[in-house]
Amino acid sequence: MGYIITIAREFSSGGREFGRCLANELGIAYYDKEILDDIVAKSSYSEEYIKQVSENKPLTLPPITLGNSFFSYSNQDLKQILDVQNIQSKIIKEYAEKSSCVIIGRGADFILKDKHPIRIFVYADDKTKLERCRKNEKDKLDIPDKKLLKHIKKIDDKRKSYYQFFTGYKWGDKVNYDLMINTSGADIKTLAHYFAELIKNTRFKEDRS
Amino acid sequence: MGYIITIAREFSSGGREFGRCLANELGIAYYDKEILDDIVAKSSYSEEYIKQVSENKPLTLPPITLGNSFFSYSNQDLKQILDVQNIQSKIIKEYAEKSSCVIIGRGADFILKDKHPIRIFVYADDKTKLERCRKNEKDKLDIPDKKLLKHIKKIDDKRKSYYQFFTGYKWGDKVNYDLMINTSGADIKTLAHYFAELIKNTRFKEDRS
Repeated sequence: MGYIITIAREFSSGGREFGRCLANELGIAYYDKEILDDIVAKSSYSEEYIKQVSENKPLTLPPITLGNSFFSYSNQDLKQILDVQNIQSKIIKEYAEKSSCVIIGRGADFILKDKHPIRIFVYADDKTKLERCRKNEKDKLDIPDKKLLKHIKKIDDKRKSYYQFFTGYKWGDKVNYDLMINTSGADIKTLAHYFAELIKNTRFKEDRS
Repeated sequence: MGYIITIAREFSSGGREFGRCLANELGIAYYDKEILDDIVAKSSYSEEYIKQVSENKPLTLPPITLGNSFFSYSNQDLKQILDVQNIQSKIIKEYAEKSSCVIIGRGADFILKDKHPIRIFVYADDKTKLERCRKNEKDKLDIPDKKLLKHIKKIDDKRKSYYQFFTGYKWGDKVNYDLMINTSGADIKTLAHYFAELIKNTRFKEDRS
C-alpha cells in the first residue's frame, strides 16, 4: 500500500517538521526544498526567479481566470510564471508516480488530486508560532511579538494567495483537507509518530473517492 | 491523566459514532442525549421545549449581544432560553468535574474552555453524508440526493447558529478546534481506535495553554 501525503501549513506551525517526521516514520520520500532544486535543474530560470514566482509573485496577481487585459504584468511575465508552475506540477507528479512520499506545500494536494492524496493542513495558535519562529530563526529573537506576528501573517497571506491563484480554492478551508491538525504546544515528533500509526493502520484514504 | 474531549460535528458525518467509539476505546464516560435527560430532570421545562430551545430556537435569534429591543420574542422567552442554557452549562461542567469524558455538541468546547478540552470537529463530504444519513434513518432512503442534502444543510445551519449565538465564535472554524477530521469514506470505528491511541500517547493537550 502506498501513501501520497500532502502537507499545507501555516508558517511556524511546525508543519514542515511534522511532514519530515511523518516521512521518517513511514519510511517514505520527503520533498520540500528539493522541489526548487529540481525546477532549477529542469528549466532555464534562475533559482532566485523561481523563488520569486513560486513564493511571492502571485500575491500581486489577479486570479488566473481573469482576462489578460486586466493584468498589471506583461504577457511574457505571465508566460514565465505559468511555465515555472507547469514544470513544478510535472515534477510533483513524477515524485508521486515514483514512490510513496510526503510533499510540503506548493498546492500539491491540488496538483495530485487524481491520486487522492492524504491532504493534511497544519496550523497553530499565535503563541506557538512565535515560539517556533524564534526557535528556528535566531535573528528573530529580538523582534517584538506584534511585529513578528505581522511577518508570520504576511507569509501565510502569500501562501493563501499562491494557492488560490493556482487552484481556485481557499487555502486552509477544511473541505480541501482530510485532516487539520492544530499543533499548539504539541511535541511534533510524537504527534507525527501517532499520525503515522493512524495512516498505516486505517485505510485512511484508499477507500475514498 | 484525564481526558475531556468535546466533539462538534456536521450532521451525518459520523461524529456521534466517532465520539462513542473514542469513549469506549479510552474507557471514559460519553454524554450525548443524556444531557437532555439531565436538563429535564433538573428543570421545570418539558423535554419538547428544551429540545426546541437547544436545537431550533436560536436560529431565529439575533446574536445574544444585541439589545433586547430588537428581539422578536418576549423577555419571558429570552429568560427561559437562557435558563435552559445555564442549566445545560452547569450539567456539562459537572460531567467534566466528575471524570474523563467525551461530550457531543452543545458548545461544550466553549463551556469547558477553562479545562482546555481536546476539541474535535468531525466533517465529511456530501456523498458520505448522504450514505450515512440513509443508513441511520431508513425513512430517508427514498428522498432524492438534492432534497436530502438540503435537509442535512438545514440541520448544520441550526448547529452553526446555535454555536454562534451562545459562544460568539464561528462553528467549524479551525481556530476553535485542536483536530478537524474528515471522515469521508472512512471506517469510523478504526479511525476512533487510532485517534484514541494518539490521544493516550501524545500529551496531546495537557502541555498547552
